[in-house]
Amino acid sequence: MIKTEIGYTKVDAIVVREMDLAKDIIGRFDFVEMLLLTTVGRKPTPQEKNMINALLVVSLDHGLTPSALSARLTYLGAPEALQGAVAAGLLGAGSVFLGTTQNAAEMLIEAGAELPEDADDDEVASAARALVERMRAARKPIYGLGHNIHVSGDPRVNALRELSRENGFYGRHWRLMDAIGTAMQEKLGRALPMNAVAASASMIADLGLDPLLGRGIVMTGRCAGLVGHVLEERESPIALQLWDLVLDQDPRNERPQRTSR
Amino acid sequence: MIKTEIGYTKVDAIVVREMDLAKDIIGRFDFVEMLLLTTVGRKPTPQEKNMINALLVVSLDHGLTPSALSARLTYLGAPEALQGAVAAGLLGAGSVFLGTTQNAAEMLIEAGAELPEDADDDEVASAARALVERMRAARKPIYGLGHNIHVSGDPRVNALRELSRENGFYGRHWRLMDAIGTAMQEKLGRALPMNAVAASASMIADLGLDPLLGRGIVMTGRCAGLVGHVLEERESPIALQLWDLVLDQDPRNERPQRTSR
Amino acid sequence: MIKTEIGYTKVDAIVVREMDLAKDIIGRFDFVEMLLLTTVGRKPTPQEKNMINALLVVSLDHGLTPSALSARLTYLGAPEALQGAVAAGLLGAGSVFLGTTQNAAEMLIEAGAELPEDADDDEVASAARALVERMRAARKPIYGLGHNIHVSGDPRVNALRELSRENGFYGRHWRLMDAIGTAMQEKLGRALPMNAVAASASMIADLGLDPLLGRGIVMTGRCAGLVGHVLEERESPIALQLWDLVLDQDPRNERPQRTSR
Amino acid sequence: MIKTEIGYTKVDAIVVREMDLAKDIIGRFDFVEMLLLTTVGRKPTPQEKNMINALLVVSLDHGLTPSALSARLTYLGAPEALQGAVAAGLLGAGSVFLGTTQNAAEMLIEAGAELPEDADDDEVASAARALVERMRAARKPIYGLGHNIHVSGDPRVNALRELSRENGFYGRHWRLMDAIGTAMQEKLGRALPMNAVAASASMIADLGLDPLLGRGIVMTGRCAGLVGHVLEERESPIALQLWDLVLDQDPRNERPQRTSR
Repeated sequence: MIKTEIGYTKVDAIVVREMDLAKDIIGRFDFVEMLLLTTVGRKPTPQEKNMINALLVVSLDHGLTPSALSARLTYLGAPEALQGAVAAGLLGAGSVFLGTTQNAAEMLIEAGAELPEDADDDEVASAARALVERMRAARKPIYGLGHNIHVSGDPRVNALRELSRENGFYGRHWRLMDAIGTAMQEKLGRALPMNAVAASASMIADLGLDPLLGRGIVMTGRCAGLVGHVLEERESPIALQLWDLVLDQDPRNERPQRTSR
Repeated sequence: MIKTEIGYTKVDAIVVREMDLAKDIIGRFDFVEMLLLTTVGRKPTPQEKNMINALLVVSLDHGLTPSALSARLTYLGAPEALQGAVAAGLLGAGSVFLGTTQNAAEMLIEAGAELPEDADDDEVASAARALVERMRAARKPIYGLGHNIHVSGDPRVNALRELSRENGFYGRHWRLMDAIGTAMQEKLGRALPMNAVAASASMIADLGLDPLLGRGIVMTGRCAGLVGHVLEERESPIALQLWDLVLDQDPRNERPQRTSR
Repeated sequence: MIKTEIGYTKVDAIVVREMDLAKDIIGRFDFVEMLLLTTVGRKPTPQEKNMINALLVVSLDHGLTPSALSARLTYLGAPEALQGAVAAGLLGAGSVFLGTTQNAAEMLIEAGAELPEDADDDEVASAARALVERMRAARKPIYGLGHNIHVSGDPRVNALRELSRENGFYGRHWRLMDAIGTAMQEKLGRALPMNAVAASASMIADLGLDPLLGRGIVMTGRCAGLVGHVLEERESPIALQLWDLVLDQDPRNERPQRTSR
Repeated sequence: MIKTEIGYTKVDAIVVREMDLAKDIIGRFDFVEMLLLTTVGRKPTPQEKNMINALLVVSLDHGLTPSALSARLTYLGAPEALQGAVAAGLLGAGSVFLGTTQNAAEMLIEAGAELPEDADDDEVASAARALVERMRAARKPIYGLGHNIHVSGDPRVNALRELSRENGFYGRHWRLMDAIGTAMQEKLGRALPMNAVAASASMIADLGLDPLLGRGIVMTGRCAGLVGHVLEERESPIALQLWDLVLDQDPRNERPQRTSR
């Protein structure tokens, strides 16, 4: 039968996960609670909420990332369609940026499957080393290490680790990820610092969330960030300047002097 | 100069709205606070947070809307790209569904521009009647009225009005929207109930938010809802059944009996 | 009933516009013929084919336009999903770029509705002047004039006008568009040259095509162009350099020296 | 340096692959020639043109596929943005539908790498059997076999094979694909007929095209097909009926009787 367990609609009520949206949810559930209710069917604990909020906050994005640039360039051509600009930005959340959170979480869950929650440090280190060997032998990527700007350590990682500890979610996946960093350092002879993807993936895995949901959460955070970029683009546009900047890189392109826009 | 006021990146820090993401934001800002910080440059008050949470909660979506169906049909063809399925769902948030929240908020802000915050009921009713006349004369749509299922009243509207009152945001735009409903009823001789778009737009206008940001907020809520639908689609797929259902509508289509999938 | 007139599927045949795809279409219809068959239900004449080919060729795109940049930036983050990169590029085809072909064609069709096909030059000039007055009075845009690079004339316009003449499609909409250029020049006291949008719109209108189909044709051309950009991006990537270039514009951003990638 | 080899722009000329767009291309290149010029840098031969036209024609789409449904559902919510509806349709062209043409072509190119162009039938059959064994051992999918409707043979395959023969492109990849079908039949003890993906992939491989370009070509064909669906949706809408049809599947959903729309 074609149906969804998320909800249904009566003439005088909307039902979400068997609760009445108007009577029992609006004003009683905040967004993070609603997100978990919708996707998983239950309210998060206060600690889980802190964790999910941090995942959303950290992925929201700042700065002119490729995703933000794509949204702004799209808005330049189609300012009537905010949804198009946001969609264009989200479409970059794939196997290289952001979407890779899912892969990293899957890697940790698989590698940690045999590891008891109370494993000692040696067991964790050994599982990490085994993973590194296995991935390198299979020429597969090890997710979550290295950053093109934060070359001596991604500042978000420590903050997220601390937050996870405080909320009781520094578990075996976080420990494994930390140990993977150490194992790779031994292997390479130099530090390859953990990045925010590693931290987000560890949080998702230690929360026991489905990695696909984890990816969806960071994508939702990014959605809000892209809205911010489009809003700014409308007030202080840069997309046209960016286009000029690109054209000017190739001397074969000619461009008349503009006295004004 | 090409830059954004949202944030920038140093080798050892990420700065968002002049705050240090790792030190001052992670663990201290929840998602709604971060959303407002990023887009508007300040933290919301607790009352504003309640309002924005309700906007996100109400737009998150339930049930098999066109937007959810589009996401699920897209996931069927490209399960490797969650971002594509979510983007496909968001692309329907235009002038008919969801995106229309922006138009409704703009309508209210424009019509309420001359109305003092302490206008009495007669003044509000008169502004509403004037708007109805103006829109009808110009053959322009009046946003926020009518619903294809909740024909005798959208249950979300009362809940959102109540919440707005409790948080001190039942202001002149809400009153105007309510009066527009009354004015249209007088005009048409039958009730055309307010829908969730009307409520969301009133909230956005009374919060003093930019309508484009308001549209972005409801789109962010929807993003989370679409993630929920894709997650369910992976576990309990319906897209293929939906396709069969469609093909079977036209007797010219032939389809062999399937014994199993 | 839910069905499409475009086609249906039998166990041993696919039927498109009542023709057998395998027997009557493959190898007998080229792409432009199939495009018209599918959308309009008939084969184009050779002259119409020349015109539609030119619309496709001219919109295919060259150079690093915002649309191409958006596709490349998206590919950087999600190289596994060509469809996402192409979609991101297409999403910029809105009211400012490319999509505006539809608006321009609608403008010409509306303004030319009263004009007989054999109108003399004075009648055409007078309809053009009336349009210019009407649009300026209503503060509406006049589509198809001006170009940020080809300030003294878009080289595509003459070629497309010539082609239209040769194929018998330099009709009243082309003449009207040319006269609008002249009327605006009189008004402004300086030339505001016609751009490719004006030419494409004139061609669509003189072909008698639905403006929405016209927009769809130029979008299809652009789709092929975006494929070319993604293909080149895979071999000779520039998106990462573009990101660096942008970050370097704002001195607040720090970036370590990269010795290699 | 940030630049593209596809083209650049001078104040009075547009240069594509070192040719003058206005003087040398418009009116002289049709769409397929322009597509190959842009992506590969040269004009196709007449035989190659026939093949590429067939790839475009066959992927253009007919009927209410998930991709067409997604475009129509998106258009329902955002009729102002054709680009969004088309993008939503394209986003389903992934690893299951259409995009898989790339995977199938890659499979054939890899498996055929050691096979001389004049290999005899035994050599081809043996390479096919080796591929089937290798893929099954690695639990990887064998692309291009089976169809949910055309259970006793996809009618497009024979037509495309015939066309390829006529144009001199029935080469070792086509032969390998045919032999893979036979090898699978031996293995399974029942026929698993080749589908259009197999035929398209064979054509791409025997044309010597990059599989990513091949995928881009079929996506371009689909783009035109989606335009046709949106055009029809505007005139004879079905998306709202489809929504109702879905809601009616789940008896928990209530829906008032509609007297009219």
